[in-house]
Amino acid sequence: MGGPREGRRTEDNSRSLNRILALSDGVFAIALTLLVLNIEVPEIPEDLVAEELPGALLDLWPKFLSYILSFVVIIFYWIAHHSIFGLIKDHDRVLIWLNSLFLLCVAFLPFPTALLDEYGDQQLVVVIYAGSLATTRLLLSLVWWYVSGRPHLANIDTDPSTMRAFGIRAWVVPLIFLVSIAISFFSVTAAVYSWLLLVIADFVLLRVLRRSR
Amino acid sequence: MGGPREGRRTEDNSRSLNRILALSDGVFAIALTLLVLNIEVPEIPEDLVAEELPGALLDLWPKFLSYILSFVVIIFYWIAHHSIFGLIKDHDRVLIWLNSLFLLCVAFLPFPTALLDEYGDQQLVVVIYAGSLATTRLLLSLVWWYVSGRPHLANIDTDPSTMRAFGIRAWVVPLIFLVSIAISFFSVTAAVYSWLLLVIADFVLLRVLRRSR
Amino acid sequence: MGGPREGRRTEDNSRSLNRILALSDGVFAIALTLLVLNIEVPEIPEDLVAEELPGALLDLWPKFLSYILSFVVIIFYWIAHHSIFGLIKDHDRVLIWLNSLFLLCVAFLPFPTALLDEYGDQQLVVVIYAGSLATTRLLLSLVWWYVSGRPHLANIDTDPSTMRAFGIRAWVVPLIFLVSIAISFFSVTAAVYSWLLLVIADFVLLRVLRRSR
Amino acid sequence: MGGPREGRRTEDNSRSLNRILALSDGVFAIALTLLVLNIEVPEIPEDLVAEELPGALLDLWPKFLSYILSFVVIIFYWIAHHSIFGLIKDHDRVLIWLNSLFLLCVAFLPFPTALLDEYGDQQLVVVIYAGSLATTRLLLSLVWWYVSGRPHLANIDTDPSTMRAFGIRAWVVPLIFLVSIAISFFSVTAAVYSWLLLVIADFVLLRVLRRSR
Repeated sequence: MGGPREGRRTEDNSRSLNRILALSDGVFAIALTLLVLNIEVPEIPEDLVAEELPGALLDLWPKFLSYILSFVVIIFYWIAHHSIFGLIKDHDRVLIWLNSLFLLCVAFLPFPTALLDEYGDQQLVVVIYAGSLATTRLLLSLVWWYVSGRPHLANIDTDPSTMRAFGIRAWVVPLIFLVSIAISFFSVTAAVYSWLLLVIADFVLLRVLRRSR
Repeated sequence: MGGPREGRRTEDNSRSLNRILALSDGVFAIALTLLVLNIEVPEIPEDLVAEELPGALLDLWPKFLSYILSFVVIIFYWIAHHSIFGLIKDHDRVLIWLNSLFLLCVAFLPFPTALLDEYGDQQLVVVIYAGSLATTRLLLSLVWWYVSGRPHLANIDTDPSTMRAFGIRAWVVPLIFLVSIAISFFSVTAAVYSWLLLVIADFVLLRVLRRSR
Repeated sequence: MGGPREGRRTEDNSRSLNRILALSDGVFAIALTLLVLNIEVPEIPEDLVAEELPGALLDLWPKFLSYILSFVVIIFYWIAHHSIFGLIKDHDRVLIWLNSLFLLCVAFLPFPTALLDEYGDQQLVVVIYAGSLATTRLLLSLVWWYVSGRPHLANIDTDPSTMRAFGIRAWVVPLIFLVSIAISFFSVTAAVYSWLLLVIADFVLLRVLRRSR
Repeated sequence: MGGPREGRRTEDNSRSLNRILALSDGVFAIALTLLVLNIEVPEIPEDLVAEELPGALLDLWPKFLSYILSFVVIIFYWIAHHSIFGLIKDHDRVLIWLNSLFLLCVAFLPFPTALLDEYGDQQLVVVIYAGSLATTRLLLSLVWWYVSGRPHLANIDTDPSTMRAFGIRAWVVPLIFLVSIAISFFSVTAAVYSWLLLVIADFVLLRVLRRSR
């Protein structure tokens, strides 16, 4: 339904890339901001407010946690997207579609987050949440895999260790989410906590990769 | 209510075009991200969650499908918008209004999607959904038709076959949606599946048009 | 709570102006797209859908109308904003605040629209809707009035008739909305229709102003 | 989960900074626009509308006030963000994360605003609202503190008094919010009004700081 993009000059090319980034940043910003809509103000009868509000707000803590968790993971993905597109200098239709499928998953994330808010103790929900995040990251890894083999799309000559680091991290994050799915079959709580370890693991990994250069 | 735009220089012109694209990309990004709000977390009494949640989530599959369908179609339209504005170098008030009417339809799409979610088996709903998507694409085709005849607005001299491809695709997509409306009078399910064929048809058409050059 | 902005160079100045436009376009895009959330899918018992859905959708027509009306008026305001900022070359704190107050009103517009959807036959609601739109436009006129007298902020030397046109239109639109408030005391329906006349009046006014140059 | 950003040139650097600003402005714009969703159209039985609507709308006035209050404070923060990033010329991973944590708080603000709408007379709610706004501003101050000591990240040589003004204002705003929390233990109403004084105080402070140069 689009149309051919041939015969464009480099300046148009840059404007064209900027629009892909503008759409992506828009979807990221809205997905991040919609997360807060999952946290609803508790409804309490007027004469019981003073008594029951503190407890009702405390009961919201899993929603605050999942807000922070989803926000931080989406920021992780945004940083990865930012890093990958920092190397991209041109695009083709396949790249636009891979990026769009990634955005389809990013825009979907408020749903598994809301599900986790409501039924965070259910193994099925933990599997759906981890599965959604793993799929999202895999699609971004696919974007990376697609451009890294095409020198006319990305500046891949910059530094071999940078390339290796991109490659390792592209597969480690989805792998850890998939491992957390396996863990959830034994303990749902352990699976949820494994996501926090994931954040730490990523920072450690980053430091090791940097030191190894 | 606006104001005349005369006496501007080319650099302002570029900033001016960028604002039209910024507003358009914003509307696209939000329409894409609002689609997920149609998928609501099922409400289940606490003691029945483990038992009923899997079934309740499975029952959501038409909502997941219509999320993906609407997302993909809006991305199709974004790519077409992207291609058309890649050729546009200047704008006038008519172009702004045609683009705004197109955006009015894009911003409206979450409603027919929600309708399809709820009453996807009703012929009327299928007609409204296909009709909304056809109208939206027709307005974009109108943008294309308007600029393609005005050399001071668009770089139309690039390549005659590119122009022809734009022209063919501008009318094929709304046509297929209108055909699906006709189909819906015989079978609602067949009409819904015809939209999936549309996606395939578009890819084939694109490939044929490219080969023919 | 902000901070001084002194000692900046012109390139930073341009980036700075771009951020004001980015925030403004973001607020415009979201206000436009939130309007559709006012149109809710009717809830109908499963066995009555085929029978009652057509009627229920027809009953939504005032919501479709107010969606289109608010969308078109916000686009009008966006075009005016676009025209005014096309002449602005620098900014100060007062300009940022006037623009922010204008955005506060733009972001508020989904509320009077929702009110009109629900209680469009009430004179009070018509007054609130027209009053909100008049106030919004007056704040934009204030932006224009502020920069038009400050040559270091706006390129006002371009064309005296352009300036006059800006000035006339800045006050005509809020005036017509205020007149519609007066009309509403006699007939609510007449007041609503007067807004449609407003759109036509604006086009005519634009044409006359152009011819008179 | 991101990836190393080494080996980039300055033009990429500028595009990279622009994306951080695009994401930030997107989150700001959406947080600002979501605030209006807290103001719900009152539901009134059809035969009582004419009678009860004026009262029902008047009862909404605390929601209008908190809409304006939150909108103005978020604009204050946006202006501060705008001023700080006007001096920033490069970024590293720590800056991205500090900015992201700040955005996490900005995107969260619609929740304490909704809470204030519903239970504005509760001391706990006033503490949560003031605490959220203080934390948000402190994170922005942290961004400032981080870049102001790193000449390769920010142009801090511009003007010593500008630097001092940034520094004073960075800590004054959260301080005042923290004081309002103390006040709330004596009078909830006084605490709420102290926020309005805050706005005035900020303007006075700005004027004094400017005069002292």
